[in-house]
Amino acid sequence: MKVTGGEGGKILALKIAKYLDTEYIDTLSRTFPDGEIYVRVMGSVKGEDVILVQSMGKKPNKLLIEYLLIADTLKDLGARNIIAVIPYLPYARQDARFNPGEAVSIKTVSKLIEKVGVSAVITVDMHLHRFKSIQAIFSVPAYNLSAMSLLAEYTASEFGLSKPLVAGPDEEAEQWAKIAANALQSDYLVLGKTRRGDYEVEIRGKSLAVVQARDVLIVDDIISTGGTMAKAVEALKTAGAKRILAACTHPLLIEDALYKVLSAGAEAVVGTDTVPSPISFVSVAPLIASFLKETVL
Amino acid sequence: MKVTGGEGGKILALKIAKYLDTEYIDTLSRTFPDGEIYVRVMGSVKGEDVILVQSMGKKPNKLLIEYLLIADTLKDLGARNIIAVIPYLPYARQDARFNPGEAVSIKTVSKLIEKVGVSAVITVDMHLHRFKSIQAIFSVPAYNLSAMSLLAEYTASEFGLSKPLVAGPDEEAEQWAKIAANALQSDYLVLGKTRRGDYEVEIRGKSLAVVQARDVLIVDDIISTGGTMAKAVEALKTAGAKRILAACTHPLLIEDALYKVLSAGAEAVVGTDTVPSPISFVSVAPLIASFLKETVL
Amino acid sequence: MKVTGGEGGKILALKIAKYLDTEYIDTLSRTFPDGEIYVRVMGSVKGEDVILVQSMGKKPNKLLIEYLLIADTLKDLGARNIIAVIPYLPYARQDARFNPGEAVSIKTVSKLIEKVGVSAVITVDMHLHRFKSIQAIFSVPAYNLSAMSLLAEYTASEFGLSKPLVAGPDEEAEQWAKIAANALQSDYLVLGKTRRGDYEVEIRGKSLAVVQARDVLIVDDIISTGGTMAKAVEALKTAGAKRILAACTHPLLIEDALYKVLSAGAEAVVGTDTVPSPISFVSVAPLIASFLKETVL
Amino acid sequence: MKVTGGEGGKILALKIAKYLDTEYIDTLSRTFPDGEIYVRVMGSVKGEDVILVQSMGKKPNKLLIEYLLIADTLKDLGARNIIAVIPYLPYARQDARFNPGEAVSIKTVSKLIEKVGVSAVITVDMHLHRFKSIQAIFSVPAYNLSAMSLLAEYTASEFGLSKPLVAGPDEEAEQWAKIAANALQSDYLVLGKTRRGDYEVEIRGKSLAVVQARDVLIVDDIISTGGTMAKAVEALKTAGAKRILAACTHPLLIEDALYKVLSAGAEAVVGTDTVPSPISFVSVAPLIASFLKETVL
Repeated sequence: MKVTGGEGGKILALKIAKYLDTEYIDTLSRTFPDGEIYVRVMGSVKGEDVILVQSMGKKPNKLLIEYLLIADTLKDLGARNIIAVIPYLPYARQDARFNPGEAVSIKTVSKLIEKVGVSAVITVDMHLHRFKSIQAIFSVPAYNLSAMSLLAEYTASEFGLSKPLVAGPDEEAEQWAKIAANALQSDYLVLGKTRRGDYEVEIRGKSLAVVQARDVLIVDDIISTGGTMAKAVEALKTAGAKRILAACTHPLLIEDALYKVLSAGAEAVVGTDTVPSPISFVSVAPLIASFLKETVL
Repeated sequence: MKVTGGEGGKILALKIAKYLDTEYIDTLSRTFPDGEIYVRVMGSVKGEDVILVQSMGKKPNKLLIEYLLIADTLKDLGARNIIAVIPYLPYARQDARFNPGEAVSIKTVSKLIEKVGVSAVITVDMHLHRFKSIQAIFSVPAYNLSAMSLLAEYTASEFGLSKPLVAGPDEEAEQWAKIAANALQSDYLVLGKTRRGDYEVEIRGKSLAVVQARDVLIVDDIISTGGTMAKAVEALKTAGAKRILAACTHPLLIEDALYKVLSAGAEAVVGTDTVPSPISFVSVAPLIASFLKETVL
Repeated sequence: MKVTGGEGGKILALKIAKYLDTEYIDTLSRTFPDGEIYVRVMGSVKGEDVILVQSMGKKPNKLLIEYLLIADTLKDLGARNIIAVIPYLPYARQDARFNPGEAVSIKTVSKLIEKVGVSAVITVDMHLHRFKSIQAIFSVPAYNLSAMSLLAEYTASEFGLSKPLVAGPDEEAEQWAKIAANALQSDYLVLGKTRRGDYEVEIRGKSLAVVQARDVLIVDDIISTGGTMAKAVEALKTAGAKRILAACTHPLLIEDALYKVLSAGAEAVVGTDTVPSPISFVSVAPLIASFLKETVL
Repeated sequence: MKVTGGEGGKILALKIAKYLDTEYIDTLSRTFPDGEIYVRVMGSVKGEDVILVQSMGKKPNKLLIEYLLIADTLKDLGARNIIAVIPYLPYARQDARFNPGEAVSIKTVSKLIEKVGVSAVITVDMHLHRFKSIQAIFSVPAYNLSAMSLLAEYTASEFGLSKPLVAGPDEEAEQWAKIAANALQSDYLVLGKTRRGDYEVEIRGKSLAVVQARDVLIVDDIISTGGTMAKAVEALKTAGAKRILAACTHPLLIEDALYKVLSAGAEAVVGTDTVPSPISFVSVAPLIASFLKETVL
């Protein structure tokens, strides 16, 4: 078993190899002035099982092509099995044809990943909305790990939160709130849009008054433009929360997303390193390494 | 038969549809702030043969992923056959493993194009160096058209060249020089690097004196950084050529490539629209449309 | 008198130097991986008047900073006067404070250009809407040349237009239509938005019926996203125009602008090289060189 | 006194305003598809002293132009004094004419900042090599704060370093090593290139043996491509250091810089938020706020 990674996964690959006490193989990767990627695997993989780590945030097309080039090269060099570790898998939200003629992009992306040859896929907190499970997207064994417990524990401990109430900013985030609350042995609530308008937030079926004088930890899978999270922070602040912290697995942080959430009143925002960012305080390397040790190796 | 195209092929698709007097179907394509592409096919393709035009210069990874998303969507929408028209096919120069562990990227790219489903591939002046023919790269029928005759005729006529001598800037360009010279019923020569140093240019086996007082048209498949072409212009100027014009099929024109060739002494530089550029004076649309009419339709 | 240029002006500088039969001085310019620009003037300018050519389309901030670095260096190296030739001057449309607190960016930009030291500014078809003349923006002598006659003549001749009617796509384009019509000794009309809705186009005070069976040439200063031009083409097509050509001085051509105008029904679109683009068929070099010869030199 | 910031300074501005208990004024800033920036100041500044925060890492030209637009607008809106807080000031290493004709870019940049009107400039750990002090670059009062003590204390405490030896990776870093060692009441050494070759590292005048079994903290002002830091880590590892941590004020982290330093053997790398990055664990907001309180306010 060897571990390698592309531009989007080298640092995680290095850490995972250390946890697994396995050989790390470097890849060279550079981009020519004409935009083409050059890829070279710097070690022997003949007959080996190889864990190929590549997270695909922010430059999804380039990082996906790079992944496909490396995986195909590993196969060509004689690797036996490839286990794809893709902590952030892009295109997950394009999971249905909402209008005639639209691409269901996640189906194409998963097909491409499988077609170059892979024996298992591991990702983290993948946004599953219309597909019931990750197994509905991949035909090889696929695993969707969760970093929510790690995130919740880190944030609560680092910022000294006392019995924090966990909040999901919308219905789709209930799954994350549940996990985080469980990790903190705490209660949770889910915010929702009212039927009266787009920009009002309410707690589903309850009064927001329950947040008064509480420390609140809002959790979500992704902070993209920060709009949803900022509105949740604002609503909780207005409702009288004492302290408000925000956490997410994938801190995409498009443009001024971080500023939006902070200026709405969050004390701090915490994310993981599935997408390298100024708030990537929690590493998913131990999570992935443990899973690999128990399940795959 | 219908014609459509992605961001890299819409204008050519529109022109080809006009030449073929066939229905053109638009695609919507936009890039989200997180880098993901959204694609939508704006017409019915059920049971149809579809010509999908996508040139892939300058942003090869994005345009390749967009191609794959559109092709997969066309299939999913019930298209019968897809004919891929890829006037500029990237990664063609990564056609061998020069050092251990390197990706033979063109093999991966062709595999991806085939795996989403395609019944034929048409490209233009693809750089074939180590592969004898395009058919060694694709397993579906593949056609490598040449725009060299068009280019040579346009340049000679537009700039009033009188009996131009055609020149290839290096050995690999002999194939292009031969076609261009044939189109102009003229003679050609091939420049080459001397064994004495990297930066000297000589004519293979002849004296450069033959260019004296001649109008010279230098042709190549690609002008990328412009280095090769600029050196050829310089050598011909030093050798006493009267007028020097340069032409290429794929004007990638990285950074100040055009400036380099002009400041070396070329009167003008001409390219085609396989890569949209300030010198894309010749369209490959009629070339492709004629071929489709005769061969595929 | 010597001529030089930055990344946005080298090719024009080279051409202008040729027209003026003056020495061209090259500049080296490269961008470090951290985004900083490196600039070097490759010849002696001590005691000289220097024409510094830099068009600033598409990457306005980088090209403006590069201009400022080169101009300041020229001064530092002992250049006597600097004549700024900025064929495309960005930020011209940000010429008023529409909402409290907004930057009037063109005022800041002109101030920066003047502060590094310049004795005259020459630009081409600058968008002057709220300022009556370019002299209201610069305190040094400033000249706003027009490429409209060149553009109109080239397009009419190249495409064999017979007595073309000239059209301006909106009120602000009347100034351009007038010049183009004058050059072609033809008549012109100005399209306008109706008061009934945003997307309807009508001729100011006349019936669109006048365009029936006419060749029409629509002219504007800029094609940016192509929306305005595409709507004008559509309106004229619906009204029965025989052939429709579009021309602009500055082909910024954001995203699929060119496709929009062509798919709306324009036979072709023509621009100048103030912004290098696939439709930059007309060079402003002779225009600028003639003006320099007559006025400044 | 009010505090505001551009795209490169909003989060720091927000934090500084909180520390100073002063009003924070937001700015709107967006980039049009043609690359032009739009800027709007969202509050009243008439007659006020304004602290304008803008760090300029990674996109130096855009962030500098944005700074100039905001500063000029603040003046135009009636602000009395502007105090520029520029935690990362780009172009500092272009501080001399090494070859004839080169721009001394930092002189141009400081001139531009002064010309739009500023009464003081505050930066952090500016690279001062050929200029003795920041006051040789600016004619208004200018202050160069240091984050080295903060960085050293954070790293030593967070990673439980026991009596760490501080190291500067080259001669120019001696100034930083001295400050860090002083903060930790520790000793320091400076690595240097041998005269024998480019890639060997030695301790100036001493044997590297002193690092054996020691925890070492390497400090520098900037990690750009990571080359210098990676070589220092490697040298110390070879020499037998027990644990190696790396820290810098400005984590520019070009391409795979972080990977390079980690794979060379550093346990972790720590930076500040003058350049937002995945290792920006230390904020310079308290440092700047304290200085403002004591000196300027």
